[in-house]
Amino acid sequence: MDRSLHDRLTVIDGLQYSNWDRGLFEELRAGGLSAVHVTLAYWEDARATLRLIGDWHRRFEQHGDLIVPARSADDVVAAKASGRTAIIFGFQNCSPIEEDLSLVQIFHELGVRIMQLTYNNQSVLGGGCSEAADSGLPRFGREVIAEMNRVGMVIDLSHSGERTTLEAIAASGRPVAISHADPLFLHENVRNKSGRVLRALAESGGMLGFSLYPLHIGPGCTLERFCAAEARTAEMIGVEHLGFGTDTVRNWPDPVLDWMRHGRWTRGTGPAPRWPDWPDWFRTPADFPNLTEGLLAVGFGEADVARIMGGNWLDFFRRSFAPA
Amino acid sequence: MDRSLHDRLTVIDGLQYSNWDRGLFEELRAGGLSAVHVTLAYWEDARATLRLIGDWHRRFEQHGDLIVPARSADDVVAAKASGRTAIIFGFQNCSPIEEDLSLVQIFHELGVRIMQLTYNNQSVLGGGCSEAADSGLPRFGREVIAEMNRVGMVIDLSHSGERTTLEAIAASGRPVAISHADPLFLHENVRNKSGRVLRALAESGGMLGFSLYPLHIGPGCTLERFCAAEARTAEMIGVEHLGFGTDTVRNWPDPVLDWMRHGRWTRGTGPAPRWPDWPDWFRTPADFPNLTEGLLAVGFGEADVARIMGGNWLDFFRRSFAPA
Repeated sequence: MDRSLHDRLTVIDGLQYSNWDRGLFEELRAGGLSAVHVTLAYWEDARATLRLIGDWHRRFEQHGDLIVPARSADDVVAAKASGRTAIIFGFQNCSPIEEDLSLVQIFHELGVRIMQLTYNNQSVLGGGCSEAADSGLPRFGREVIAEMNRVGMVIDLSHSGERTTLEAIAASGRPVAISHADPLFLHENVRNKSGRVLRALAESGGMLGFSLYPLHIGPGCTLERFCAAEARTAEMIGVEHLGFGTDTVRNWPDPVLDWMRHGRWTRGTGPAPRWPDWPDWFRTPADFPNLTEGLLAVGFGEADVARIMGGNWLDFFRRSFAPA
Repeated sequence: MDRSLHDRLTVIDGLQYSNWDRGLFEELRAGGLSAVHVTLAYWEDARATLRLIGDWHRRFEQHGDLIVPARSADDVVAAKASGRTAIIFGFQNCSPIEEDLSLVQIFHELGVRIMQLTYNNQSVLGGGCSEAADSGLPRFGREVIAEMNRVGMVIDLSHSGERTTLEAIAASGRPVAISHADPLFLHENVRNKSGRVLRALAESGGMLGFSLYPLHIGPGCTLERFCAAEARTAEMIGVEHLGFGTDTVRNWPDPVLDWMRHGRWTRGTGPAPRWPDWPDWFRTPADFPNLTEGLLAVGFGEADVARIMGGNWLDFFRRSFAPA
């Protein structure tokens, strides 16, 4: 394929969680990625999260030719200009802030720019997508949303229940994100989002990062089918709200999936989970150019491809990462 | 007295630890203070220290007309220009970094600019001034000094033993501070410093903050005697290395002194300690203008008074707070 278009684009991945090493950073470069939102924590408390931040500081020192920390849209632009990939910190759960409102600003000062209110389960901030009942936003949840709005930390609702998602969109004074999920019409999965959610998200100025995770796109999903779902979503809510959040998880053994799903909150629920197989058109982030090609093939023009591949995320970061 | 000289000066206090409230911030303004290095932690671990930082974030919001956070010399200059007092974070011990080198950069990112290697006792970084034997710098101490040098965090040796102090001065690639102590010739006290230490400190480009703590200046010390000791020290090591670090401790009940001295490392050593009485010429930071007057009275010229009252600290901050 001709990569010249892809290589000109600002390409952003709205979520990855990998067992990082130099090979994976080279993979990001091979995919032409300008920025990746990386997950630091699922169930870790504040202290354990500081250690994970310290691990990243070492990676920035050791692999400064490939990656650079990013706290703003300008940092992403500078990373692309220098041929490196910007790394944006995020949490997939609110465990790191424990029950202390002050930790929102403290983690923002340490570079954290995105946080999910919940990870599948009920949290102190809201209801999770895997719960039978959804509490909506409790008192602390409303306080944390206001604080995230104040300091400039994006509210991510990828793993939240529908009621909590809709209430959070309404409660937030700034646009929110669903960093990694797909429309329910692509595949019926507890993690995918209804038309009602997608419309509310777009009306508030928010962003949807299309997920490539096999359980979200469904078995046998082709690149064409996947990109056609983007085209249909663009018609529904507008192309300016679309991006990618591939949910890439590289180099982890199966027990890490068990940790992600079950943390320390349960002894487990049946056989140990195993990582799913990825589609042959997106096995790793090095395959990002296939997404550019796929979007062109379903009829998106170059300007819209540029938006979906990263331009929309970049605009969103510019509006979202600084104090109100 | 005529305050016109004092009010023109950049006045900096190299150390205070108080139970902060609005009244104390007004006291700083009454004393004409442009900046104060405030102690956050003695024996607190990383998580407890995050809470103390969060407490300061609330104070900055609630009393933004009186105080402002400072991470650089420029922040101090801006604070003075806006008629507010700049607050610089520091630790009197290394407990907040636990045994994790990464926490040096993490706390620097959160605004911490000064850290003591030890607080009276042996620490994992070095020997304390109250120990019978001084380990000097252990392996981790040398690592932390290099890391503090790298990120721009000042090594403070006020409560360290003499061997550790001399070894740290030699090991550090950047000038260090003794933020709050007096020359041993002013008063024999375990916390005061020998001529050997003062000369080594000055030769390395470091700073001595003269302490007003009653146990450091000795019983019945007059303003004249105190300022004469500054004059003698200026002759010994040069006026450019001198400032104040009053060791002001306001509004704490006696049990807090017990916490400072004994933390949780002992059941105590005899009767509970009580706060000493302060000299009538320096009861609170509102009395800072008396120090300007006292320095003039023992013969310092206005330029040297400006240096000692804060100009030297400001220059030192400019050289010390940014990454190497």
